[in-house]
Amino acid sequence: MGGSVAIFGLGAMGSGMAGSLLRAGLTTHGFDINTDAVARFRAAGGAAGSIEEVASGLACVVIVVVNAAQTEAVLFGSDGIAAKLKPGTAVIACATMAPDVARDLAKRCADLGLHYLDAPVSGGTIKAGEGTLSILASGSPEAFEQARPALDAIAAQVFELGDKVGAGSSMKAVNQMLVGIQIAAMAEAMTFGMTQGVTPEKFLEVIRQCAGTSWALESRAPHVIAGDYTPLSAVDIWLKDLGIVLDIAKGAKFGAPLTAAALQQYLAASGSGLGAEDDAAIAKVYARNVNLTLPGEA
Amino acid sequence: MGGSVAIFGLGAMGSGMAGSLLRAGLTTHGFDINTDAVARFRAAGGAAGSIEEVASGLACVVIVVVNAAQTEAVLFGSDGIAAKLKPGTAVIACATMAPDVARDLAKRCADLGLHYLDAPVSGGTIKAGEGTLSILASGSPEAFEQARPALDAIAAQVFELGDKVGAGSSMKAVNQMLVGIQIAAMAEAMTFGMTQGVTPEKFLEVIRQCAGTSWALESRAPHVIAGDYTPLSAVDIWLKDLGIVLDIAKGAKFGAPLTAAALQQYLAASGSGLGAEDDAAIAKVYARNVNLTLPGEA
Repeated sequence: MGGSVAIFGLGAMGSGMAGSLLRAGLTTHGFDINTDAVARFRAAGGAAGSIEEVASGLACVVIVVVNAAQTEAVLFGSDGIAAKLKPGTAVIACATMAPDVARDLAKRCADLGLHYLDAPVSGGTIKAGEGTLSILASGSPEAFEQARPALDAIAAQVFELGDKVGAGSSMKAVNQMLVGIQIAAMAEAMTFGMTQGVTPEKFLEVIRQCAGTSWALESRAPHVIAGDYTPLSAVDIWLKDLGIVLDIAKGAKFGAPLTAAALQQYLAASGSGLGAEDDAAIAKVYARNVNLTLPGEA
Repeated sequence: MGGSVAIFGLGAMGSGMAGSLLRAGLTTHGFDINTDAVARFRAAGGAAGSIEEVASGLACVVIVVVNAAQTEAVLFGSDGIAAKLKPGTAVIACATMAPDVARDLAKRCADLGLHYLDAPVSGGTIKAGEGTLSILASGSPEAFEQARPALDAIAAQVFELGDKVGAGSSMKAVNQMLVGIQIAAMAEAMTFGMTQGVTPEKFLEVIRQCAGTSWALESRAPHVIAGDYTPLSAVDIWLKDLGIVLDIAKGAKFGAPLTAAALQQYLAASGSGLGAEDDAAIAKVYARNVNLTLPGEA
């Protein structure tokens, strides 16, 4: 195999993943429109060189941007990289996007001889930094083979979902639907309990051992209890991700009432100025509607 | 301590709990308006005698009926048992009900010198039969002390939620809110995935290892995959339990949009004839709305 890696997008997720690539001993080039982020990455061991200078030595590129539009811009925008990569390079596309869009990008990559891997990630910024993400991946055997060293560096678990691009994005949408609903459900249940005298601490202690538990509850309830809304994953991420989910659903004429109800609560959070806070801040929407004081509030 | 136990309600939950009381070596009397259920319980080792005959020897009574109205009828209806029990007997009330109703029943029991334990159970019929339920209990130290042998027989875990009746019912309502939402969310996500080519089997395999997982998903998705809707917990239970939750919420002027959305889906299931099926049959509501064929369907 051999070859180096280029990662596009050095934000909260991308910079963690880039660090994991370096720790795995892979020569890694990092690119971002934020030149400070690029400088930090190079200071941490990132390899130098413009994409034009390094393209011929790349085994794969990892694209960790916010959405499909940014992924398309990286690949096919003015100054896009797709035309600069040599045939046989793997393109690991990590953003959450609609399966149809992933299939379109894959086709345009295939026309240039590039191996597209539909590879959304799950796990958040902490796991990104640890190299312990989960990757929901689909693509050709060639794409997997070429991407393998990078995948092994950034993920604890790679779900191989077959050779059809779109399967990874579909599974990611399913997962985001559930996480988005279940964070909102945690907030709804915790604040409902407070109206009946159940403290947030007791809520977490008991419910995590009962049938009402979920990964989302065990992950996010502690944020509310601590009154700490430092964004590990921000409210506004859900406007995007549940928006993508509902767009896909609409395309299939699939009614998703719980997803829609959850999105309304995230919208109320974002609309009232909480968009950049941790998504557990959705609890504030519920709390203010019934005059509850959450932990850490005055 | 000492004394025997009487259990009122020998349905799916009660008969399992009665068996656990017998296995623990407690002399146990079983009562139900269904005389066949009583006969089966006595054949399995249940003690004989009318409530009038056995009341003086009882340490506690366990009431495992469908709701608050039936609990009240057992205690205070025409021929109710409360007036027949000797002061100091514990009344273990296991039905899901509003905290206010539990407090009212407790007060009326206290007026007769009875120790009311607000003790909703969590865990379903299988755990009931195994004696491994969770109990969300609150009440006086005397109530806990008197109820202890019975609690130990029927539960793997007793959450002691303080001395105020209502705390147990409140926590149960919180738990049911989450389970009810999360079964519906499982169905919404599984069927959404099917519209994108994600099979139910792959859905469970992958999502149970991802952030989207929940107890409800891991419990109920296998039912849909097996096409087996034998009711471990029926759709109609949710009409009752989410109805109670929303009544409590309304009393507190608490808006619960995800709970409300979930209840609509259970209503659509029940209204179309699925009320007696396992609650995983809520997936059929989603599937038929988009012309999907679930496993096991023609």
